[in-house]
Amino acid sequence: MNEVMESLLSRRSTRAYMKKQVPLDLTLQVVEVGRYAPNGMHQEPWHFTVIRSWEKICALDFAVGGDGKGGSFYQAPTLVIVSIEEGNEFALQDTACAMTNMMQAAHSLGLSSVWCNRISRMSKDYASFGVPAGYVPKAVLALGYGAVPSAGTWHVKEDTVTIVE
Amino acid sequence: MNEVMESLLSRRSTRAYMKKQVPLDLTLQVVEVGRYAPNGMHQEPWHFTVIRSWEKICALDFAVGGDGKGGSFYQAPTLVIVSIEEGNEFALQDTACAMTNMMQAAHSLGLSSVWCNRISRMSKDYASFGVPAGYVPKAVLALGYGAVPSAGTWHVKEDTVTIVE
Repeated sequence: MNEVMESLLSRRSTRAYMKKQVPLDLTLQVVEVGRYAPNGMHQEPWHFTVIRSWEKICALDFAVGGDGKGGSFYQAPTLVIVSIEEGNEFALQDTACAMTNMMQAAHSLGLSSVWCNRISRMSKDYASFGVPAGYVPKAVLALGYGAVPSAGTWHVKEDTVTIVE
Repeated sequence: MNEVMESLLSRRSTRAYMKKQVPLDLTLQVVEVGRYAPNGMHQEPWHFTVIRSWEKICALDFAVGGDGKGGSFYQAPTLVIVSIEEGNEFALQDTACAMTNMMQAAHSLGLSSVWCNRISRMSKDYASFGVPAGYVPKAVLALGYGAVPSAGTWHVKEDTVTIVE
């Protein structure tokens, strides 16, 4: 099996992180892969906001309905908010393409990650979290070094494939 | 740069295919990576239908509003329909995660692919195309050997990243 296939099949979400910060250059490599994700009609309607300030992460946790201690993002030390231009018809799909690419990139760089969805509960105070005007946050990638061992064997649902010859 | 990052950054969509069929085992490797894609609440609400019959591909083209000659799918010799359980709240995101993973797997295996979206125009005759009852087709992956050289250098939109330290 080639390295890419091995990586695609071995990525898992991580929900506990060390406090150790991710170097900015590694995070930017992850984001770069998000920028190269497939997207509808090649409109690239996205904006990526990297948050490395623990104070801001706690404030964002509070803004999405958490207790302000980072729990909505599993206390990860770096977040990447994916925002999409308001009204874009492929908003959810493009968000997911960018998120999937970034999760894969993180895995290949020895980082752990998980998609956090509570951002949809956020009030409209997007600007104070580095989201440009005209964009709506759609997903948050929590990024860091995993504090728990990999889940190991993973079972996926059976009978999910039909072949029409 | 590691092989996975290189692969993630070099994948491009392909819209012209050779007639040469993709071996079924390679296609199933691609689909396997779709089955391991990240998905909301780990519900795995998807079903993958591999269509290798040219007659069926042309019939599907007609069903989605094409002229029945395969043009909606760029005349690719193999299609993978991603369907999602009716009513699933993460339908679009999970579809996109599976599609992104499969496009990446295809690229790593020397195959070309593109996301085809016209499936949303299809009437409800899903069963004749191998979609199980209770599932709704959300996207089609066209899969094959590219008939055109890679687009080469690729420009992505500037000013799409903000850093909050």
